[in-house]
Amino acid sequence: MRIGILGGTGPQGRGLGRRFAMAGHEVLLGSRDASRAQQVAEELADAGNVSGVANAEAAQAELVVVAVPYEGHADLLTSLADALAGKVVVDCVNPLGFDAHGPYPLDVPDGSAAQEAQRILPGSTVVGAFHNVSARLLDDPSVTHIPGDVLVLGEDRDAIALVIDLVTALPGSRGLYGGRLRLARTVESLTANLIAVNRRYKTHSGISISGLPDVPAASAP
Amino acid sequence: MRIGILGGTGPQGRGLGRRFAMAGHEVLLGSRDASRAQQVAEELADAGNVSGVANAEAAQAELVVVAVPYEGHADLLTSLADALAGKVVVDCVNPLGFDAHGPYPLDVPDGSAAQEAQRILPGSTVVGAFHNVSARLLDDPSVTHIPGDVLVLGEDRDAIALVIDLVTALPGSRGLYGGRLRLARTVESLTANLIAVNRRYKTHSGISISGLPDVPAASAP
Repeated sequence: MRIGILGGTGPQGRGLGRRFAMAGHEVLLGSRDASRAQQVAEELADAGNVSGVANAEAAQAELVVVAVPYEGHADLLTSLADALAGKVVVDCVNPLGFDAHGPYPLDVPDGSAAQEAQRILPGSTVVGAFHNVSARLLDDPSVTHIPGDVLVLGEDRDAIALVIDLVTALPGSRGLYGGRLRLARTVESLTANLIAVNRRYKTHSGISISGLPDVPAASAP
Repeated sequence: MRIGILGGTGPQGRGLGRRFAMAGHEVLLGSRDASRAQQVAEELADAGNVSGVANAEAAQAELVVVAVPYEGHADLLTSLADALAGKVVVDCVNPLGFDAHGPYPLDVPDGSAAQEAQRILPGSTVVGAFHNVSARLLDDPSVTHIPGDVLVLGEDRDAIALVIDLVTALPGSRGLYGGRLRLARTVESLTANLIAVNRRYKTHSGISISGLPDVPAASAP
Protein backbone atom coordinates (compact mmCIF):
# COMPACT_ATOMS: atom_id res chain seq x y z
CA MET A 1 0.00 0.00 0.00
CA ARG A 2 1.06 3.58 -0.61
CA ILE A 3 1.12 5.24 2.80
CA GLY A 4 1.61 8.94 3.43
CA ILE A 5 2.85 10.16 6.81
CA LEU A 6 2.12 13.74 7.81
CA GLY A 7 4.86 14.83 10.19
CA GLY A 8 7.01 11.96 9.02
CA THR A 9 10.25 13.48 10.25
CA GLY A 10 9.23 13.42 13.94
CA PRO A 11 10.11 10.39 16.07
CA GLN A 12 6.77 8.57 15.73
CA GLY A 13 6.34 9.33 12.03
CA ARG A 14 9.87 8.35 11.21
CA GLY A 15 9.64 5.12 13.21
CA LEU A 16 6.34 4.11 11.61
CA GLY A 17 7.72 5.03 8.18
CA ARG A 18 10.64 2.71 8.74
CA ARG A 19 8.43 -0.20 9.76
CA PHE A 20 5.92 0.30 6.96
CA ALA A 21 8.77 0.38 4.43
CA MET A 22 10.37 -2.72 5.97
CA ALA A 23 7.01 -4.47 5.52
CA GLY A 24 7.00 -3.64 1.81
CA HIS A 25 4.75 -0.60 1.73
CA GLU A 26 5.60 2.47 -0.32
CA VAL A 27 6.05 5.36 2.13
CA LEU A 28 5.65 9.06 1.36
CA LEU A 29 7.31 10.71 4.33
CA GLY A 30 5.81 14.18 4.63
CA SER A 31 7.06 17.31 6.33
CA ARG A 32 6.43 21.05 6.26
CA ASP A 33 9.96 21.16 4.88
CA ALA A 34 10.29 18.84 1.87
CA SER A 35 14.09 19.03 1.90
CA ARG A 36 14.13 17.91 5.52
CA ALA A 37 11.80 15.05 4.56
CA GLN A 38 14.17 14.04 1.75
CA GLN A 39 17.05 13.99 4.21
CA VAL A 40 15.17 11.70 6.63
CA ALA A 41 13.98 9.52 3.75
CA GLU A 42 17.63 8.98 2.80
CA GLU A 43 18.37 7.91 6.36
CA LEU A 44 15.59 5.34 6.03
CA ALA A 45 16.69 4.13 2.59
CA ASP A 46 17.87 0.80 4.02
CA ALA A 47 14.30 0.08 5.17
CA GLY A 48 12.73 0.08 1.70
CA ASN A 49 10.80 2.41 -0.56
CA VAL A 50 10.69 5.78 1.27
CA SER A 51 10.41 9.20 -0.40
CA GLY A 52 10.62 12.52 1.39
CA VAL A 53 7.95 14.99 0.28
CA ALA A 54 5.90 17.97 1.41
CA ASN A 55 2.93 17.10 3.65
CA ALA A 56 0.56 18.09 0.83
CA GLU A 57 2.10 15.43 -1.39
CA ALA A 58 2.04 12.80 1.38
CA ALA A 59 -1.68 13.53 1.69
CA GLN A 60 -2.16 12.18 -1.85
CA ALA A 61 -1.32 8.63 -0.72
CA GLU A 62 -3.87 5.83 -0.46
CA LEU A 63 -3.84 5.85 3.34
CA VAL A 64 -2.55 8.75 5.42
CA VAL A 65 -1.06 8.67 8.92
CA VAL A 66 -1.07 11.84 11.02
CA ALA A 67 2.00 12.07 13.26
CA VAL A 68 2.48 15.80 13.72
CA PRO A 69 2.86 17.50 17.11
CA TYR A 70 -0.56 18.38 18.51
CA GLU A 71 0.14 22.12 18.23
CA GLY A 72 0.00 21.96 14.43
CA HIS A 73 -2.64 19.25 14.15
CA ALA A 74 -5.83 21.24 13.49
CA ASP A 75 -4.26 23.74 11.09
CA LEU A 76 -2.53 21.10 9.00
CA LEU A 77 -5.63 18.92 8.68
CA THR A 78 -7.77 21.94 7.80
CA SER A 79 -5.39 22.79 4.97
CA LEU A 80 -5.43 19.20 3.63
CA ALA A 81 -9.12 18.36 4.09
CA ASP A 82 -9.86 18.18 0.35
CA ALA A 83 -6.92 15.88 -0.39
CA LEU A 84 -7.85 13.60 2.51
CA ALA A 85 -11.53 13.25 1.62
CA GLY A 86 -12.61 9.70 0.86
CA LYS A 87 -9.58 8.19 2.61
CA VAL A 88 -8.79 6.39 5.82
CA VAL A 89 -6.81 8.78 8.01
CA VAL A 90 -4.91 7.20 10.90
CA ASP A 91 -4.34 9.65 13.73
CA CYS A 92 -1.59 8.77 16.21
CA VAL A 93 -1.23 12.19 17.83
CA ASN A 94 -0.93 12.35 21.63
CA PRO A 95 -1.89 15.77 22.98
CA LEU A 96 0.46 16.05 25.96
CA GLY A 97 1.94 18.92 27.90
CA PHE A 98 5.15 18.74 29.93
CA ASP A 99 6.08 20.49 33.16
CA ALA A 100 8.44 19.88 36.07
CA HIS A 101 6.39 16.80 37.05
CA GLY A 102 6.59 15.26 33.60
CA PRO A 103 3.95 14.78 30.92
CA TYR A 104 0.22 15.27 31.37
CA PRO A 105 -2.77 15.10 29.01
CA LEU A 106 -3.83 18.40 27.48
CA ASP A 107 -7.47 19.38 27.41
CA VAL A 108 -8.72 18.90 23.86
CA PRO A 109 -11.98 20.73 23.04
CA ASP A 110 -13.18 17.88 20.80
CA GLY A 111 -12.30 15.27 23.42
CA SER A 112 -9.30 13.80 21.62
CA ALA A 113 -7.00 14.49 18.69
CA ALA A 114 -8.78 11.73 16.79
CA GLN A 115 -12.19 13.35 17.31
CA GLU A 116 -10.75 16.72 16.34
CA ALA A 117 -9.45 15.14 13.13
CA GLN A 118 -12.85 13.62 12.37
CA ARG A 119 -14.56 16.98 12.90
CA ILE A 120 -12.12 18.73 10.57
CA LEU A 121 -12.25 15.91 8.02
CA PRO A 122 -15.94 15.03 7.65
CA GLY A 123 -15.23 13.38 4.29
CA SER A 124 -12.53 11.07 5.68
CA THR A 125 -12.74 8.01 7.89
CA VAL A 126 -10.59 8.71 10.91
CA VAL A 127 -9.11 5.87 12.91
CA GLY A 128 -6.94 6.29 16.01
CA ALA A 129 -3.92 3.96 16.34
CA PHE A 130 -0.19 3.66 17.11
CA HIS A 131 -0.40 6.02 20.10
CA ASN A 132 1.54 3.97 22.60
CA VAL A 133 4.28 2.35 20.56
CA SER A 134 7.82 3.36 21.47
CA ALA A 135 9.26 5.49 18.67
CA ARG A 136 12.70 4.40 19.81
CA LEU A 137 11.91 0.74 19.18
CA LEU A 138 10.17 1.47 15.88
CA ASP A 139 13.15 3.36 14.51
CA ASP A 140 15.78 0.81 15.56
CA PRO A 141 16.15 -1.73 12.74
CA SER A 142 18.00 -4.10 15.10
CA VAL A 143 14.77 -4.47 17.13
CA THR A 144 13.00 -7.49 15.66
CA HIS A 145 10.22 -7.72 18.24
CA ILE A 146 8.09 -4.72 19.19
CA PRO A 147 6.12 -5.96 22.17
CA GLY A 148 2.64 -4.86 22.98
CA ASP A 149 -0.73 -4.25 21.42
CA VAL A 150 -1.85 -1.39 19.21
CA LEU A 151 -5.34 -0.25 20.19
CA VAL A 152 -7.29 0.78 17.09
CA LEU A 153 -10.23 3.12 17.66
CA GLY A 154 -12.94 4.15 15.26
CA GLU A 155 -16.48 3.92 14.03
CA ASP A 156 -16.02 2.08 10.73
CA ARG A 157 -15.44 -1.66 10.82
CA ASP A 158 -13.70 -1.85 7.44
CA ALA A 159 -11.32 0.97 8.28
CA ILE A 160 -10.56 -0.60 11.64
CA ALA A 161 -9.86 -3.94 9.98
CA LEU A 162 -7.55 -2.22 7.48
CA VAL A 163 -5.54 -0.58 10.26
CA ILE A 164 -5.44 -3.73 12.38
CA ASP A 165 -3.94 -5.39 9.32
CA LEU A 166 -1.42 -2.56 8.98
CA VAL A 167 -0.14 -3.37 12.48
CA THR A 168 1.37 -6.54 11.01
CA ALA A 169 4.18 -4.21 9.85
CA LEU A 170 5.31 -4.08 13.50
CA PRO A 171 6.78 -7.53 14.21
CA GLY A 172 5.50 -8.81 17.56
CA SER A 173 2.75 -6.23 17.87
CA ARG A 174 -0.91 -7.06 17.65
CA GLY A 175 -3.68 -4.76 16.48
CA LEU A 176 -6.87 -4.83 18.54
CA TYR A 177 -10.11 -2.93 18.42
CA GLY A 178 -10.01 -0.54 21.37
CA GLY A 179 -13.36 1.23 21.20
CA ARG A 180 -15.12 4.07 19.42
CA LEU A 181 -13.46 7.42 18.71
CA ARG A 182 -14.91 8.90 21.90
CA LEU A 183 -12.62 6.54 23.81
CA ALA A 184 -9.52 7.73 21.93
CA ARG A 185 -8.60 10.37 24.50
CA THR A 186 -7.78 7.67 27.02
CA VAL A 187 -5.41 5.89 24.65
CA GLU A 188 -3.77 9.17 23.62
CA SER A 189 -3.37 10.15 27.28
CA LEU A 190 -2.03 6.75 28.29
CA THR A 191 1.24 7.73 26.67
CA ALA A 192 1.83 10.03 29.65
CA ASN A 193 1.51 7.08 32.03
CA LEU A 194 3.88 5.05 29.89
CA ILE A 195 6.43 7.87 30.04
CA ALA A 196 6.07 7.76 33.86
CA VAL A 197 6.66 4.00 33.71
CA ASN A 198 9.67 4.53 31.46
CA ARG A 199 11.21 7.01 33.87
CA ARG A 200 10.65 4.86 36.94
CA TYR A 201 11.74 1.57 35.40
CA LYS A 202 14.25 2.81 32.80
CA THR A 203 12.63 1.15 29.82
CA HIS A 204 10.63 1.74 26.62
CA SER A 205 7.24 0.45 27.65
CA GLY A 206 4.10 -0.30 25.72
CA ILE A 207 0.76 -1.81 26.60
CA SER A 208 -0.69 -5.24 26.07
CA ILE A 209 -4.20 -6.44 26.61
CA SER A 210 -4.39 -9.56 28.74
CA GLY A 211 -7.10 -12.16 28.50
CA LEU A 212 -7.07 -12.59 24.70
CA PRO A 213 -5.37 -15.95 24.13
CA ASP A 214 -7.09 -16.48 20.78
CA VAL A 215 -6.13 -13.21 19.09
CA PRO A 216 -2.65 -13.83 17.72
CA ALA A 217 0.16 -11.32 17.53
CA ALA A 218 0.24 -9.87 14.03
CA SER A 219 3.57 -11.42 13.31
CA ALA A 220 5.54 -13.55 15.72
CA PRO A 221 9.16 -12.57 16.35
CA MET B 1 -2.97 -6.41 57.29
CA ARG B 2 -6.45 -5.32 58.30
CA ILE B 3 -8.08 -3.96 55.16
CA GLY B 4 -11.41 -2.17 55.00
CA ILE B 5 -13.36 -2.05 51.74
CA LEU B 6 -15.92 0.71 51.28
CA GLY B 7 -18.54 -0.58 48.88
CA GLY B 8 -17.38 -4.10 49.52
CA THR B 9 -20.59 -5.72 48.28
CA GLY B 10 -20.19 -4.44 44.71
CA PRO B 11 -18.41 -6.59 42.12
CA GLN B 12 -14.96 -4.96 42.44
CA GLY B 13 -15.05 -4.66 46.23
CA ARG B 14 -16.27 -8.19 46.67
CA GLY B 15 -13.64 -9.59 44.28
CA LEU B 16 -10.80 -7.68 45.95
CA GLY B 17 -12.09 -8.74 49.37
CA ARG B 18 -11.97 -12.35 48.31
CA ARG B 19 -8.39 -12.08 47.06
CA PHE B 20 -7.15 -10.13 50.05
CA ALA B 21 -8.67 -12.72 52.38
CA MET B 22 -7.19 -15.59 50.32
CA ALA B 23 -3.80 -13.91 50.77
CA GLY B 24 -4.19 -13.93 54.55
CA HIS B 25 -5.37 -10.38 55.18
CA GLU B 26 -8.21 -9.61 57.56
CA VAL B 27 -10.98 -8.01 55.50
CA LEU B 28 -13.70 -5.68 56.78
CA LEU B 29 -16.21 -5.69 53.96
CA GLY B 30 -18.17 -2.46 54.24
CA SER B 31 -21.56 -1.46 52.87
CA ARG B 32 -24.22 1.16 53.47
CA ASP B 33 -26.25 -1.81 54.63
CA ALA B 34 -24.35 -3.81 57.27
CA SER B 35 -26.71 -6.78 57.01
CA ARG B 36 -26.10 -6.96 53.27
CA ALA B 37 -22.36 -6.84 54.01
CA GLN B 38 -22.71 -9.70 56.47
CA GLN B 39 -24.51 -11.76 53.85
CA VAL B 40 -21.75 -11.20 51.28
CA ALA B 41 -19.07 -11.87 53.91
CA GLU B 42 -20.67 -15.26 54.53
CA GLU B 43 -20.48 -15.99 50.80
CA LEU B 44 -16.76 -15.24 50.99
CA ALA B 45 -16.19 -17.28 54.15
CA ASP B 46 -14.26 -19.94 52.22
CA ALA B 47 -11.69 -17.29 51.25
CA GLY B 48 -10.54 -16.48 54.76
CA ASN B 49 -11.16 -13.88 57.43
CA VAL B 50 -13.95 -11.64 56.08
CA SER B 51 -16.44 -9.69 58.21
CA GLY B 52 -19.40 -7.73 56.89
CA VAL B 53 -19.77 -4.32 58.51
CA ALA B 54 -21.07 -0.80 57.92
CA ASN B 55 -18.82 1.42 55.79
CA ALA B 56 -18.03 3.52 58.86
CA GLU B 57 -16.60 0.49 60.60
CA ALA B 58 -14.64 -0.60 57.52
CA ALA B 59 -13.10 2.87 57.55
CA GLN B 60 -11.47 2.00 60.91
CA ALA B 61 -9.14 -0.52 59.26
CA GLU B 62 -5.42 0.00 58.80
CA LEU B 63 -5.73 0.49 55.05
CA VAL B 64 -8.98 1.36 53.29
CA VAL B 65 -10.02 0.57 49.72
CA VAL B 66 -12.75 2.65 48.07
CA ALA B 67 -14.86 0.59 45.68
CA VAL B 68 -18.20 2.40 45.69
CA PRO B 69 -20.04 3.51 42.54
CA TYR B 70 -18.87 6.96 41.49
CA GLU B 71 -22.29 8.48 42.23
CA GLY B 72 -21.82 8.00 45.95
CA HIS B 73 -18.06 8.57 46.06
CA ALA B 74 -17.79 12.19 47.20
CA ASP B 75 -20.56 12.02 49.78
CA LEU B 76 -19.27 8.85 51.39
CA LEU B 77 -15.68 10.08 51.63
CA THR B 78 -16.82 13.41 53.05
CA SER B 79 -18.70 11.59 55.80
CA LEU B 80 -15.67 9.40 56.64
CA ALA B 81 -12.87 11.98 56.33
CA ASP B 82 -12.04 11.97 60.04
CA ALA B 83 -11.81 8.19 60.28
CA LEU B 84 -9.64 8.03 57.16
CA ALA B 85 -7.15 10.70 58.24
CA GLY B 86 -3.59 9.46 58.60
CA LYS B 87 -4.23 6.38 56.46
CA VAL B 88 -3.47 5.14 53.00
CA VAL B 89 -6.72 5.17 51.02
CA VAL B 90 -6.74 3.13 47.82
CA ASP B 91 -9.26 4.43 45.31
CA CYS B 92 -10.31 2.02 42.56
CA VAL B 93 -13.40 3.89 41.38
CA ASN B 94 -13.99 4.24 37.62
CA PRO B 95 -16.30 7.16 36.81
CA LEU B 96 -18.10 5.79 33.74
CA GLY B 97 -21.40 6.49 32.09
CA PHE B 98 -23.27 4.06 29.86
CA ASP B 99 -25.44 4.72 26.84
CA ALA B 100 -26.52 2.85 23.71
CA HIS B 101 -22.90 2.88 22.47
CA GLY B 102 -21.52 1.40 25.67
CA PRO B 103 -19.42 2.90 28.43
CA TYR B 104 -17.69 6.26 28.31
CA PRO B 105 -15.64 8.29 30.82
CA LEU B 106 -17.62 10.81 32.83
CA ASP B 107 -16.29 14.32 33.31
CA VAL B 108 -14.92 14.59 36.82
CA PRO B 109 -14.45 18.15 38.10
CA ASP B 110 -11.29 17.21 40.02
CA GLY B 111 -9.86 15.36 37.01
CA SER B 112 -10.29 11.86 38.40
CA ALA B 113 -11.99 10.00 41.23
CA ALA B 114 -8.58 9.63 42.87
CA GLN B 115 -7.95 13.38 42.80
CA GLU B 116 -11.45 13.98 44.10
CA ALA B 117 -10.71 11.62 47.00
CA GLN B 118 -7.43 13.41 47.76
CA ARG B 119 -9.21 16.79 47.80
CA ILE B 120 -11.90 15.49 50.16
CA LEU B 121 -9.35 13.64 52.34
CA PRO B 122 -6.46 16.09 52.82
CA GLY B 123 -5.30 14.13 55.88
CA SER B 124 -5.08 10.82 54.02
CA THR B 125 -2.62 9.55 51.44
CA VAL B 126 -4.67 8.60 48.39
CA VAL B 127 -3.36 6.04 45.94
CA GLY B 128 -5.18 4.91 42.79
CA ALA B 129 -5.07 1.20 41.95
CA PHE B 130 -7.04 -1.91 40.89
CA HIS B 131 -9.04 0.01 38.26
CA ASN B 132 -8.69 -2.40 35.36
CA VAL B 133 -8.81 -5.82 37.00
CA SER B 134 -11.74 -8.00 35.99
CA ALA B 135 -14.12 -8.34 38.95
CA ARG B 136 -15.30 -11.60 37.44
CA LEU B 137 -11.82 -13.11 37.61
CA LEU B 138 -11.19 -11.73 41.11
CA ASP B 139 -14.34 -13.27 42.51
CA ASP B 140 -13.88 -16.70 40.95
CA PRO B 141 -11.82 -18.82 43.36
CA SER B 142 -11.13 -21.36 40.60
CA VAL B 143 -9.11 -18.67 38.76
CA THR B 144 -5.53 -19.15 39.94
CA HIS B 145 -3.89 -16.68 37.55
CA ILE B 146 -5.18 -13.13 37.15
CA PRO B 147 -3.24 -11.83 34.17
CA GLY B 148 -2.17 -8.27 33.75
CA ASP B 149 -0.59 -5.41 35.62
CA VAL B 150 -2.12 -3.15 38.25
CA LEU B 151 -1.09 0.46 37.67
CA VAL B 152 -0.59 2.22 41.00
CA LEU B 153 -0.82 6.01 40.96
CA GLY B 154 0.08 8.48 43.64
CA GLU B 155 2.42 11.08 45.07
CA ASP B 156 3.88 9.20 48.05
CA ARG B 157 6.59 6.63 47.44
CA ASP B 158 5.95 4.65 50.62
CA ALA B 159 2.23 4.43 50.02
CA ILE B 160 2.83 3.38 46.42
CA ALA B 161 5.24 0.68 47.58
CA LEU B 162 2.68 -0.55 50.12
CA VAL B 163 -0.02 -0.87 47.45
CA ILE B 164 2.34 -2.47 44.94
CA ASP B 165 3.03 -5.04 47.64
CA LEU B 166 -0.70 -5.52 48.18
CA VAL B 167 -1.04 -6.55 44.53
CA THR B 168 0.76 -9.78 45.46
CA ALA B 169 -2.68 -10.89 46.73
CA LEU B 170 -3.70 -11.24 43.06
CA PRO B 171 -1.79 -14.30 41.80
CA GLY B 172 -0.23 -13.57 38.42
CA SER B 173 -0.76 -9.82 38.62
CA ARG B 174 2.07 -7.34 38.98
CA GLY B 175 1.86 -3.93 40.64
CA LEU B 176 3.63 -1.12 38.80
CA TYR B 177 3.98 2.58 39.40
CA GLY B 178 1.77 4.24 36.81
CA GLY B 179 2.30 7.96 37.42
CA ARG B 180 1.13 10.75 39.68
CA LEU B 181 -2.50 11.22 40.71
CA ARG B 182 -3.09 13.66 37.86
CA LEU B 183 -2.63 10.70 35.48
CA ALA B 184 -5.27 8.62 37.30
CA ARG B 185 -8.12 9.72 35.06
CA THR B 186 -6.57 7.86 32.14
CA VAL B 187 -6.35 4.60 34.09
CA GLU B 188 -9.89 5.01 35.43
CA SER B 189 -11.17 5.72 31.91
CA LEU B 190 -9.26 2.83 30.37
CA THR B 191 -11.84 0.51 31.88
CA ALA B 192 -14.27 1.76 29.19
CA ASN B 193 -11.83 0.67 26.47
CA LEU B 194 -11.42 -2.71 28.15
CA ILE B 195 -15.20 -3.15 28.20
CA ALA B 196 -15.17 -2.42 24.44
CA VAL B 197 -12.44 -5.04 24.05
CA ASN B 198 -14.46 -7.50 26.13
CA ARG B 199 -17.54 -7.01 23.96
CA ARG B 200 -15.66 -7.36 20.69
CA TYR B 201 -13.53 -10.33 21.69
CA LYS B 202 -15.82 -12.02 24.27
CA THR B 203 -13.32 -12.05 27.11
CA HIS B 204 -12.41 -10.52 30.49
CA SER B 205 -9.48 -8.35 29.52
CA GLY B 206 -6.92 -6.49 31.56
CA ILE B 207 -3.81 -4.54 30.72
CA SER B 208 -0.16 -5.37 30.88
CA ILE B 209 2.82 -3.13 30.42
CA SER B 210 5.32 -4.47 27.92
CA GLY B 211 9.02 -3.78 28.00
CA LEU B 212 9.63 -4.56 31.70
CA PRO B 213 11.39 -7.92 31.71
CA ASP B 214 13.08 -7.26 35.07
CA VAL B 215 10.00 -6.40 37.11
CA PRO B 216 8.58 -9.76 38.19
CA ALA B 217 4.94 -10.64 38.49
CA ALA B 218 3.92 -10.31 42.11
CA SER B 219 3.31 -13.99 42.41
CA ALA B 220 3.76 -16.49 39.64
CA PRO B 221 0.81 -18.78 38.88
